[in-house]
Amino acid sequence: MSVERLSINQITVKAWSFEETVRGLARHGIGWIGAWVGPVEEYGPERAAALLRDHGVRVSSMCRAGFFTGKNPDGGGLDHDANRRAVDLTAAIGADVLYMVSGGVHDDLNLARSRAAVVEGIAELVPYAASAGVRLAVEPLHPMMCAERSVTVTLDQSLDIVERFDPAHVGLAVDTYNVWWDPGLDAALARAGDRIIGYQVCDWLVPQPHPTFGRGLPGDGAIDIPAITRAVDAAGFTGPIEVEIFNEKVWARDPDDVLGAVVAGFPHHVLP
Amino acid sequence: MSVERLSINQITVKAWSFEETVRGLARHGIGWIGAWVGPVEEYGPERAAALLRDHGVRVSSMCRAGFFTGKNPDGGGLDHDANRRAVDLTAAIGADVLYMVSGGVHDDLNLARSRAAVVEGIAELVPYAASAGVRLAVEPLHPMMCAERSVTVTLDQSLDIVERFDPAHVGLAVDTYNVWWDPGLDAALARAGDRIIGYQVCDWLVPQPHPTFGRGLPGDGAIDIPAITRAVDAAGFTGPIEVEIFNEKVWARDPDDVLGAVVAGFPHHVLP
Repeated sequence: MSVERLSINQITVKAWSFEETVRGLARHGIGWIGAWVGPVEEYGPERAAALLRDHGVRVSSMCRAGFFTGKNPDGGGLDHDANRRAVDLTAAIGADVLYMVSGGVHDDLNLARSRAAVVEGIAELVPYAASAGVRLAVEPLHPMMCAERSVTVTLDQSLDIVERFDPAHVGLAVDTYNVWWDPGLDAALARAGDRIIGYQVCDWLVPQPHPTFGRGLPGDGAIDIPAITRAVDAAGFTGPIEVEIFNEKVWARDPDDVLGAVVAGFPHHVLP
Repeated sequence: MSVERLSINQITVKAWSFEETVRGLARHGIGWIGAWVGPVEEYGPERAAALLRDHGVRVSSMCRAGFFTGKNPDGGGLDHDANRRAVDLTAAIGADVLYMVSGGVHDDLNLARSRAAVVEGIAELVPYAASAGVRLAVEPLHPMMCAERSVTVTLDQSLDIVERFDPAHVGLAVDTYNVWWDPGLDAALARAGDRIIGYQVCDWLVPQPHPTFGRGLPGDGAIDIPAITRAVDAAGFTGPIEVEIFNEKVWARDPDDVLGAVVAGFPHHVLP
């Protein structure tokens, strides 16, 4: 079945609650979800785990922990307790991949120091995550998010971090929107090999409707997503492919229609 | 004099005509201008050259030619005649650096092919430019412009292009806004050495008010510009430093006030 690798990140169907999302995915024959800490915590992790089990939906990843530089545009600084709680929630719903967001550049504008803080922050979280059986996924965000959200912006830079840690505990997350422009993309994916533990896709709309929410459904933009999937697969990744879309217009649509469109387009616009 | 290296790109004082800009710069004791093809052509290249001479203003660079991929968001595709005319205008006003903008990704979404077209396009333009005494400046734009405006997005990628050509005819242009996020920035600038033939500065505003027009005056954003100037200088560049700002709010201000602010801030927010 051609959508067996399809996962839907919950943000893609933002209008739905956690429960509505899980039921909706099952209704569309989708077997994976990319979950977020907030909705899972609100619904209750034990109830969430039961709901997922009952609907045969597995968790491809949990978003998110991190902000090791202390800069989080959504508010708050580095919160060690929140990061550990995210690890607990990830384990509680039977997932084993937790995405890290590095945080933006510190007020001193010293990028090197902010980047060092990311390595320190991950090193500090690894033992806790390892004991919970959760792997931390280092994700480069698009360079346009360097100031506010993530001083980690390229695959090679992320791999330099990942390679400092045991493959059992820390891996790489690849998102087409964040990495498609990189002239070193193919080489970096080959270098990554089996360190890739997460793969997300969406398209780059032209023109970009919004600095952060400009993501489109696969096939609607400028990215050759099947080519990137081919390279990710060639590197050795065989896991679920998460469709994660931040876009006000997509969020305004009926989530059932969005899922229908994603399912229909997945074999053509995502798979190699 | 601390502003002896200061150049003002004409777009920064967008409300002014070419003549008003040259007179305004002279009034503020600024000895360099970054010119644009359109206003120079409109004013007439001979008149422009005389005006510049009369006011003791030299041209740090001319914007721009290129769009070798055939994708130009401002309209039109690859226009060989326009590119050669830009070379002529550059020489006519006594300038010797013409900025190249690569163009966005082709409709086939094949980034590698689009990037190959950039190398071919520059190779085709070099003999004409060389005979006019004009050097072509390859400029990486920010990766967020990859789809629409420039498939050339990093310093190392640009250097791979630059190094194919004679240093007398092709060099590198560095703009803080486009490159500040790059984890390989310092290494790339050291690699560039005397291939750097243009240096532009502006700041990265937080939050970004607009996907293209989000640039701020030096000191108003997230970039440690003096640190980058230090690295550019250490690479061997001793030329003018162009302040180029695309920002609706800056454009709405009295250009005299903008120039006053740039001059006052230059020693603190731009120089090392």
